[in-house]
Amino acid sequence: MAFALHPRLAADCEQVGDLAVSTLLLARDERFHWAILVPRIAALADLHDIPPASRMAVFEEIERVSQALQRITHADKLNVAALGNQVAQLHIHVIARHVGDAAWPNPVWSAPPPATPLAGAALAARVQRIKQEMEL
Amino acid sequence: MAFALHPRLAADCEQVGDLAVSTLLLARDERFHWAILVPRIAALADLHDIPPASRMAVFEEIERVSQALQRITHADKLNVAALGNQVAQLHIHVIARHVGDAAWPNPVWSAPPPATPLAGAALAARVQRIKQEMEL
Repeated sequence: MAFALHPRLAADCEQVGDLAVSTLLLARDERFHWAILVPRIAALADLHDIPPASRMAVFEEIERVSQALQRITHADKLNVAALGNQVAQLHIHVIARHVGDAAWPNPVWSAPPPATPLAGAALAARVQRIKQEMEL
Repeated sequence: MAFALHPRLAADCEQVGDLAVSTLLLARDERFHWAILVPRIAALADLHDIPPASRMAVFEEIERVSQALQRITHADKLNVAALGNQVAQLHIHVIARHVGDAAWPNPVWSAPPPATPLAGAALAARVQRIKQEMEL
């Protein structure tokens, strides 16, 4: 079975571009600078399903996204998580966190709903900015 | 500065034992089979702070804990997360999740409090079981 981005990830997130192993997405919630890496390898669910030969590359992609978000947002902390309870296809959240943000000090999933929609020019600007920082 | 386990992790978690790179802890919440890996390397906060030379080893420790929890609990999903908003010292949560558990399908941090205390013989049994599965 070939890799295909899960339809819910494709619908809910903005596609930024492709790194060597992973496709980079952005969550459309203005409250957080929230990237998601989806390794383009078929049939991954848990983090340890990543084949050993691709692990260093995925780790470097996490680092690259983390450092880009750090430069863009001057984050106080980066959160990295592979959960997948709702969409089983392996996707790795990389989220810039700030003291006092909408969920601080809890995980972003504990932020009081609703999300603040990120769309139009504001979304385009964020996509452009991360592409620039990541030289995509 | 030498590595020392953060006092809050030491106080809040049960120490199971040492793997090659990380110290293995268990959260004392009966509702979840919840392990925590703390790489014994000084001054780590974000996941990408792990030096490249130790990344494969930490990844293998995540895999080893994940597979042990899988064997023990027949989990539906493993959650892996490095958050650190409350305790900045890098610690990696590895949590066995089950459809219908106390937080499902949300992250464990969204489970309605309070935790169900895990202590005494029940805690000792869990520690013993994971040590056995991990040959510690």
